[in-house]
Amino acid sequence: MSAVPHLMSLADLTAPQILRIVNHAHYLKQVSVPWLAPQSKKSARLRMPSQSLFNKSIALLFAKRSTRTRVSAETAAVLLGGRALFLGREDIQLGVNETPRDTARVIGGMCQGIFARVGAHEEIEELARYSPVPVLNALSSLWHPTQTLADVLTLHEHAHLFDTALKTPPPANKPLPQLRPLTIAYVGDSTNVLHDMLVTYPRLGHKMRVASPEKPAYQCPQPVWDRVTQLGCDKDIWWGSDPKEAVKGADVVVTDTWISMGQEAEKAQRLQDFAGYQVTEALCRDANPDWKFLHCLPRKQEEVDDQVFYGPRSLVFPESDNRKWTIMAAFDLLFGKWDLAGEKTLKILKE
Amino acid sequence: MSAVPHLMSLADLTAPQILRIVNHAHYLKQVSVPWLAPQSKKSARLRMPSQSLFNKSIALLFAKRSTRTRVSAETAAVLLGGRALFLGREDIQLGVNETPRDTARVIGGMCQGIFARVGAHEEIEELARYSPVPVLNALSSLWHPTQTLADVLTLHEHAHLFDTALKTPPPANKPLPQLRPLTIAYVGDSTNVLHDMLVTYPRLGHKMRVASPEKPAYQCPQPVWDRVTQLGCDKDIWWGSDPKEAVKGADVVVTDTWISMGQEAEKAQRLQDFAGYQVTEALCRDANPDWKFLHCLPRKQEEVDDQVFYGPRSLVFPESDNRKWTIMAAFDLLFGKWDLAGEKTLKILKE
Amino acid sequence: MSAVPHLMSLADLTAPQILRIVNHAHYLKQVSVPWLAPQSKKSARLRMPSQSLFNKSIALLFAKRSTRTRVSAETAAVLLGGRALFLGREDIQLGVNETPRDTARVIGGMCQGIFARVGAHEEIEELARYSPVPVLNALSSLWHPTQTLADVLTLHEHAHLFDTALKTPPPANKPLPQLRPLTIAYVGDSTNVLHDMLVTYPRLGHKMRVASPEKPAYQCPQPVWDRVTQLGCDKDIWWGSDPKEAVKGADVVVTDTWISMGQEAEKAQRLQDFAGYQVTEALCRDANPDWKFLHCLPRKQEEVDDQVFYGPRSLVFPESDNRKWTIMAAFDLLFGKWDLAGEKTLKILKE
Repeated sequence: MSAVPHLMSLADLTAPQILRIVNHAHYLKQVSVPWLAPQSKKSARLRMPSQSLFNKSIALLFAKRSTRTRVSAETAAVLLGGRALFLGREDIQLGVNETPRDTARVIGGMCQGIFARVGAHEEIEELARYSPVPVLNALSSLWHPTQTLADVLTLHEHAHLFDTALKTPPPANKPLPQLRPLTIAYVGDSTNVLHDMLVTYPRLGHKMRVASPEKPAYQCPQPVWDRVTQLGCDKDIWWGSDPKEAVKGADVVVTDTWISMGQEAEKAQRLQDFAGYQVTEALCRDANPDWKFLHCLPRKQEEVDDQVFYGPRSLVFPESDNRKWTIMAAFDLLFGKWDLAGEKTLKILKE
Repeated sequence: MSAVPHLMSLADLTAPQILRIVNHAHYLKQVSVPWLAPQSKKSARLRMPSQSLFNKSIALLFAKRSTRTRVSAETAAVLLGGRALFLGREDIQLGVNETPRDTARVIGGMCQGIFARVGAHEEIEELARYSPVPVLNALSSLWHPTQTLADVLTLHEHAHLFDTALKTPPPANKPLPQLRPLTIAYVGDSTNVLHDMLVTYPRLGHKMRVASPEKPAYQCPQPVWDRVTQLGCDKDIWWGSDPKEAVKGADVVVTDTWISMGQEAEKAQRLQDFAGYQVTEALCRDANPDWKFLHCLPRKQEEVDDQVFYGPRSLVFPESDNRKWTIMAAFDLLFGKWDLAGEKTLKILKE
Repeated sequence: MSAVPHLMSLADLTAPQILRIVNHAHYLKQVSVPWLAPQSKKSARLRMPSQSLFNKSIALLFAKRSTRTRVSAETAAVLLGGRALFLGREDIQLGVNETPRDTARVIGGMCQGIFARVGAHEEIEELARYSPVPVLNALSSLWHPTQTLADVLTLHEHAHLFDTALKTPPPANKPLPQLRPLTIAYVGDSTNVLHDMLVTYPRLGHKMRVASPEKPAYQCPQPVWDRVTQLGCDKDIWWGSDPKEAVKGADVVVTDTWISMGQEAEKAQRLQDFAGYQVTEALCRDANPDWKFLHCLPRKQEEVDDQVFYGPRSLVFPESDNRKWTIMAAFDLLFGKWDLAGEKTLKILKE
């Protein structure tokens, strides 16, 4: 309908475009972190982050709550000089009192971006179709692009943990280090979190190994798998139902909660289906001895034990912090500059 | 009780004062829109909108949700350098845990303006009586002044559609064009939206034609009609119950939803009472062939069909956008400068 | 766990530290109030308040609603250049979907301070244990430090009402006047509001007289009384069950609501237990004839009659306004500068 840019999934971007956003996040983090320290005399001479949202408002249309995504968005908007306007379920019910089409046009006429967490993925497609301003997918039934952006940043920041040639942590004021090709294992449900990993990691040079229980409900939805194969990612993905097999040789082990909001009723059944899927030292005996752990949070004990979650393998809190910096980068490039694809103001980084 | 200015209804203002606010909205829109575009090199040299809310906070006390009004207010406050603080039904329940009198004094001691959407109109009168800062009516049982401000701005911006002497759309950086005297038809319920039209359009030189079903519940409440007659507006208002008759010769046809929040129980009865009231091409056969359509939104299909609503006659989305600019003007003049009536810093425009 | 400063109760601070915060609040109020007036030509030359929250976000984690505390926090953050991010019960449920430990780490990784209203006091202790940024107690089952800060500021601002040597109100642009030693009576429940008074007023040179009904539920909880005695405050506190006795010779009479949110079920029993506790002229016949009245609001008629509450003895609205200025001081010193204790940038005022 128009030239308004949107982002529904990382499948919409090329690998260099994805890396450009992650590198931009790294840069914004470097510039912003000193501002967030306790005020001191030095504070007066800090360099400002991009102010591309100055005078602007970004609507957060959230059909369900999502603490990390929301707080990342609101605090990132502040640093970009703008304001996020949270509209939760109590404030707006997509499609109930008004069609998504009208809502997209009305909100898009007042705000300069829409960051939407919806139920069915079609809802965000509908918003994007009619919005006069960019729409960014904060979470849908199928995709969760901003989570994978945070994970990629976290892995690059910790490249030295996977590569003996890079012995020290990288200096904060330098570009992100390259990552050696990794094996990334995911054990659990075929969730939106996994889906963006499937279309991203293979294109960044990594291999994926997935274990999910055999029932059809836990397999990859066809529309997602179609994108995976179109992008040629499937050849670097192993998929089975044995979590021990999946984590063999893994450098990184990832899981997600098995019982999301709204699935409490199925809890007993799910716990049974996921028996043996809890991430523990024992489960990962055959992983790379230096394996690291990621989780998008909030975490429940069923899917990972305390020893792993709070132990030295866990990168979950840096990963959580990076939600903010990658969302800030996406807001700056997509909402502030309409240039998420790197065609306008910024040069694409070499892959 | 004090010299604090408030705005409960456009009936409280003179015609020149109303036009001054609308013209100020047009000016603020011109200055603000370039800021909201994707950032470019030119962005650095833009003129700032009024910063009369810098360091200030405006309380939005909303007993019911109201997306357009709320988002307009929050985004307008950002442009004025301030912040709107949304307090919905979950956050504050007027009169439940505290008297409106105490709430007005407490909130008014911390914020620099109160934009209140209440139930019974008396509630906002009570807030205004005790607030130490200006109170602006965001919607009450009787009045909806900011909606009519947006409608007047929209009609002036589209003056060329009604006047063959003005062939092209007016240049954005010029004052608003004059409107030729119009016939404005309203078909539907006697709502707060209509009430501010009744006390405004006749004083701006326009004629009104209203059709509402004959039951007493759909007629104009006496306190509103008293204001209409006091202001001499009644002589330019035709009121009947036949929608076909009402739209005869109309330049503009306006309606509102028949089933508002909280009226879902009466839905079946209301649909029956409003049989024949749906705005369609057929209904408006005897209107000015160039008639235009306005609706305050959210819209349901019962009151207007898709052909009209999404067609070229419809000004509903520019109208919706103008909620923001007129609320911004009211915030600037009332909350920022305590000068809604034009007695202080700005000169009254000639009528 | 770390050197991150927190504030759980005024018992954590020395008397000079408490007075330093209150004096800083007075200073911030002087600088800020002119900004909040209707804009005029003079506005351009005003001095800015501290901008220690510039680019920063403060999370308001509120398990229950609390209008004054919330609005104070949000408007104070604006003046400090920052932004408060309200997360109510609908947005986050501490401990339900995620452990307080994980929430503290996640929110603290994105925000630069946590202002938390919790249920059981242990919840805020848990947040402070794991948060990487300062935690300020907005209200817990045991303590309410920011309320007492507001009360102390209010009493100092009105020092002339208690001291014939200070006949006129103090000039706004001067330091706060000293208070003569006062007798402060509290009649009612042993609430969090009272508890911070108990550990504060005696150390500032004032005497306290408390009346609460004899049932164990209305007595001071042991962990609070332990702090009271550790700080040597108990020797200046009289505690009985006869409100007439408590207000004898009182310069200030304070009460709180007897029926807080969530206690509606016990209402009938409580009304009976507090028979004779309503603050009225008759009750206070033996107080200092110039006695003044404080109440943290929201107020119900049961605990104080209209004559007192809206009469000239009442300081409740200046007290309410001062919630904002003392919270602003605490935000500036604790969240903006990590220096609530006065060890870094500001000199401790002489007591």
